[in-house]
Amino acid sequence: SGVLRIASIPGDGIGREVMPEGLRVLDAASRRFGFQLQITPIEWASCDYYLQHGTMMPADWKTQLADLDALYFGAVGWPATVPDHISLWGSLLKFRREFDQYINLRPVRLFKGVPCPLVDQRGQPRQPGDIDFLVVRENTEGEYTKLGGILFEGTDRELVIQESVFTRLGTDRVLRYAFELAQRRARRHVTLATKSNGIAISMPWWDARADAMQAQFPEVSLDKQHIDILTARFVLQPNRFDVVVASNLFGDILSDLGPACTGTIGLAPSANLNPERRFPSLFEPVHGSAPDIHGRNIANPVAMIWSGALMLDFLGQRAAHDAIVQAIEQVLASGPHTPDLGGTASTTEMGEAIARLV
Amino acid sequence: SGVLRIASIPGDGIGREVMPEGLRVLDAASRRFGFQLQITPIEWASCDYYLQHGTMMPADWKTQLADLDALYFGAVGWPATVPDHISLWGSLLKFRREFDQYINLRPVRLFKGVPCPLVDQRGQPRQPGDIDFLVVRENTEGEYTKLGGILFEGTDRELVIQESVFTRLGTDRVLRYAFELAQRRARRHVTLATKSNGIAISMPWWDARADAMQAQFPEVSLDKQHIDILTARFVLQPNRFDVVVASNLFGDILSDLGPACTGTIGLAPSANLNPERRFPSLFEPVHGSAPDIHGRNIANPVAMIWSGALMLDFLGQRAAHDAIVQAIEQVLASGPHTPDLGGTASTTEMGEAIARLV
Ligand SMILES: CC(C)[C@H](C(=O)O)[C@@H](O)C(=O)O
Ligand SMILES: CC(C)[C@H](C(=O)O)[C@@H](O)C(=O)O
Repeated sequence: SGVLRIASIPGDGIGREVMPEGLRVLDAASRRFGFQLQITPIEWASCDYYLQHGTMMPADWKTQLADLDALYFGAVGWPATVPDHISLWGSLLKFRREFDQYINLRPVRLFKGVPCPLVDQRGQPRQPGDIDFLVVRENTEGEYTKLGGILFEGTDRELVIQESVFTRLGTDRVLRYAFELAQRRARRHVTLATKSNGIAISMPWWDARADAMQAQFPEVSLDKQHIDILTARFVLQPNRFDVVVASNLFGDILSDLGPACTGTIGLAPSANLNPERRFPSLFEPVHGSAPDIHGRNIANPVAMIWSGALMLDFLGQRAAHDAIVQAIEQVLASGPHTPDLGGTASTTEMGEAIARLV
Repeated sequence: SGVLRIASIPGDGIGREVMPEGLRVLDAASRRFGFQLQITPIEWASCDYYLQHGTMMPADWKTQLADLDALYFGAVGWPATVPDHISLWGSLLKFRREFDQYINLRPVRLFKGVPCPLVDQRGQPRQPGDIDFLVVRENTEGEYTKLGGILFEGTDRELVIQESVFTRLGTDRVLRYAFELAQRRARRHVTLATKSNGIAISMPWWDARADAMQAQFPEVSLDKQHIDILTARFVLQPNRFDVVVASNLFGDILSDLGPACTGTIGLAPSANLNPERRFPSLFEPVHGSAPDIHGRNIANPVAMIWSGALMLDFLGQRAAHDAIVQAIEQVLASGPHTPDLGGTASTTEMGEAIARLV
């Protein structure tokens, strides 16, 4: 112990531009807080690698990574040359599943200096404290499957079956994680995303599993909301949420919508966790590889840097996490800002400014 | 012809309070525009009926309704006494499926006088013209099924399979409807909600069906967006949408989120259409039976009234539709308003005010 062993996997597009800023800030934190970092740079898990090797990752990817403490991941995908189902299922979704990163944790938080698209009922801008909740998403099973198929293909009778698979193990552990998290927070409230009035087998079952879990956490309140009205409430009453727990698909939706409600998905971080640390966890921006702005050194590095802070927190460096988040807060409030926030700073300048404040 | 034969089915809760206002406005429109209405009041398809008869609808419901021109529907559900899966699958979802109302059409439009929760990138309030699009939802199949089951029930190995079923017939007809609609609009743009990077069988197939349909409508542009980022764009760039087409589940989500972006789902109407008129179509507010405000004559009747306007439009009374929507516009802009809009008017007063302007 003492040394944190981390793979840096930039991936594609702006992943390659924000990664150096993430590493710069990690480095600053390690010097300030006196922990050691050992970074293993990984060039695969990228579309470039795929175009050269015909596969997204080498055959021994698992042994190369399994003993590390965490994977620090940029963004993957370059649809113009490699279809998403190859690049994503061949890297990111493989990590999540084969390293059993069953929690996808995404903080949703409004910062000073980031224009919020929402106003409250009286037309007043939402204030930073108004939006501050966590989305806990099941990250390994559920609606994301290749199970099913096409019948009567190519005819008028063509029929497609798509199966979702939820296990008690997979569902209970994400529910438990959400309740444990809520128990440590001031409001102690869990919102479950459901759709039991329409999706008639799996979602009533989710409701029942959530009720059973709630019985073990009597101090935590539970609120089950259908995904349709829940998305509406993210916009109309974002202040009422504390911990929101959801299936893979519903969590995917809510963890893009939530950050959008705070101004941009460009700042949002995510943690793909194997809480027991049997396998390395993975930390990545919510944003993608953004081919449209790639190569210009203008991508906002905050999501990458904030993801690094989540990684340090997970690895026991809580103080370093807090210092990085405070540095982010300060730079968001008073600059320098990249063009997405109306500024003229480069990715590098914004990363340097945050690193200096850590 | 000449006579429009319509069932009025108030259902439960505030459905019973907004229905009289809907009928009041239809009546005003019939006098002004010289068409005749023959209203058949239906007391079943309600939880009261269920509590007395043990079923939501009589055995001959289909023959009672099949020859009518349309069903004008309030809201169904009273979860305190009847579980949703009984009340909804026993009435509303039965109508949609057995009367093959395969299009669920929901206009999303910002009105003057309704506080919008969104501001634009410069912090300026969104203007009415900024948000004006249509959600076209597949309404009979897809993710809403009772297909699947539970394996190893009650054990730690418990496993749930939920199947979605999409047919070429069902998918192509909703895509065609959306493209035809877009072709008649100024912007001629269709956005498809997809999630082909995660839901690996059905969604890539939806993408391919949409591409095939687009080939038949060369003047209409098509944009495929993953549901996660699409919900984010509803909040950040609601002005970029024209016609949004989606599966049953994705359409359900987008047609609550869209109206929320215009201030409230309380005003939103919906049309459940069998475009060929082989069966009666159904017109209903997007809101539910709202047990919390029921019995106080304070529910906003606009969604019910606007749904009535959609019904008249579908039945060939375009001028009456336009007059009702204008009357709604005027009352939303200058009152009287029910409490949800900050006013003190009753349901009846707001309904009367709209009827007077038709
Ligand atoms: C009540 C429910 C089954 C229904 C749906 O999901 O279709 C409702 O949300 C709607 O959108 O009409
Ligand atoms: C790229 C895609 C497969 C992925 C997901 O849906 O999980 C992304 O949207 C995310 O949220 O991490």
